[in-house]
Amino acid sequence: MRITIIGSGNVATVLAFALKRGGHEIVQVYSRTKANAIELAEQVDAKAVNEFADIHVNADLYIVSVKDDVIAKTANSFNVDGKIVVHTAGSIPMEVLKASSDNYGVFYPLQTFSKQRTQSFESIPICLEASDERTMKALKELANSISTNVTEVNSEQRKVLHLTAVFACNFVNHLYTLSEQLLKEHKLSFDYIRPLIIETAEKIKNINPLEAQTGPARRNDQQVMLSHLQMLENEPVLKSIYTLLSESIVNTYNSQQ
Amino acid sequence: MRITIIGSGNVATVLAFALKRGGHEIVQVYSRTKANAIELAEQVDAKAVNEFADIHVNADLYIVSVKDDVIAKTANSFNVDGKIVVHTAGSIPMEVLKASSDNYGVFYPLQTFSKQRTQSFESIPICLEASDERTMKALKELANSISTNVTEVNSEQRKVLHLTAVFACNFVNHLYTLSEQLLKEHKLSFDYIRPLIIETAEKIKNINPLEAQTGPARRNDQQVMLSHLQMLENEPVLKSIYTLLSESIVNTYNSQQ
Repeated sequence: MRITIIGSGNVATVLAFALKRGGHEIVQVYSRTKANAIELAEQVDAKAVNEFADIHVNADLYIVSVKDDVIAKTANSFNVDGKIVVHTAGSIPMEVLKASSDNYGVFYPLQTFSKQRTQSFESIPICLEASDERTMKALKELANSISTNVTEVNSEQRKVLHLTAVFACNFVNHLYTLSEQLLKEHKLSFDYIRPLIIETAEKIKNINPLEAQTGPARRNDQQVMLSHLQMLENEPVLKSIYTLLSESIVNTYNSQQ
Repeated sequence: MRITIIGSGNVATVLAFALKRGGHEIVQVYSRTKANAIELAEQVDAKAVNEFADIHVNADLYIVSVKDDVIAKTANSFNVDGKIVVHTAGSIPMEVLKASSDNYGVFYPLQTFSKQRTQSFESIPICLEASDERTMKALKELANSISTNVTEVNSEQRKVLHLTAVFACNFVNHLYTLSEQLLKEHKLSFDYIRPLIIETAEKIKNINPLEAQTGPARRNDQQVMLSHLQMLENEPVLKSIYTLLSESIVNTYNSQQ
């Protein structure tokens, strides 16, 4: 497929690489900031553009991968009727793309992306939605060329998946950040807990997270929880998070008995 | 070393296996519940006992691996003066073991354990503390026989490590549990987010978690966060967690600018 990428952030970058590796041609890369367009375009042998007027109609597919709150505005800024336009967002309805083309859809890879990390797309769930069957067929072919984990997902389900991803990824990563800060304050290396972080994630490959739970709140060990809260006396945010999540754990296991 | 294990929970079980594999002899396994003592003892070729009076003094080391709130009571229930007694807890002072022996210490493996999972101890940080140099020397030799990641850590540091582990492991796993519940309520498979969970943890092997952060709160995308909160209208606990953690993320990145 001949593909134009609109955007140059994490998702746009990782997706452009994966599609290129999958044998597709990246025709153009658009970014509001010329330097960003050039940086990505050069890496995938595409032309860089930073004006909507310069987006050619010679691609088969246009992937709008920009911040959620500017997707609609972006779709209003170019028109490629007859071609397919998709966005890659979890929580944005696909209908905002109508302005660009009658054939539109969603190509949502359920994963966290950083430019610094090259990821194989093979096992990444790609959730598809399309305005019509012909568009869905084309998107499926494309998705199957880079992943073995492709499903049709409606807008409502996609929103739930995105919300869940916030809990399972964004909040989890923030807990890593808070952990690092806590260790740093006490001049302890983050390396101490790296094996723990990996094992916590690996564990749920074969144990249900409900069963995998360990720690003072799981045991309802009030004494240890109290001593932890005392250590957080001067850290109001950490203290609130500790209290709220511990209560949630205690209630999860008590209400089951 | 000849080792007696007091306890039959997750840590006691995984540690007994690792020590056995490391070439040590497990002499006895004590558990209050005879069946539990037998179950573990049989697997490591040890004798099972369920009375403190039956604990022999013929081992070199006694590992007290019971719930935090019964460690002190357990130490008061047997005496093996001249031998080494350790516990494996993050937040309990080692002095509670004085009642069992003059040579005591802490053997704290910084990891989450489940009986269902066999783990190599090789990269697990083992944090040691001891009443005297001779005891420390013996504990180091033992720890080095099963891990390449052995350090001396004082009580204060150990408490910080344990508190951090609650954030980086226990709370993280609970977020997995909440994610699974959320998906289940909407009849979506947990498999959708398994690759995301693994990648979120793997990512921080080469990216600092502060930089690895993604998601609506990182972008301060108020519209998406609002729509997520609306989806959680009938889930007060999830809503509170969403609000608190999103605020913490927003503040983390705004205060840096």
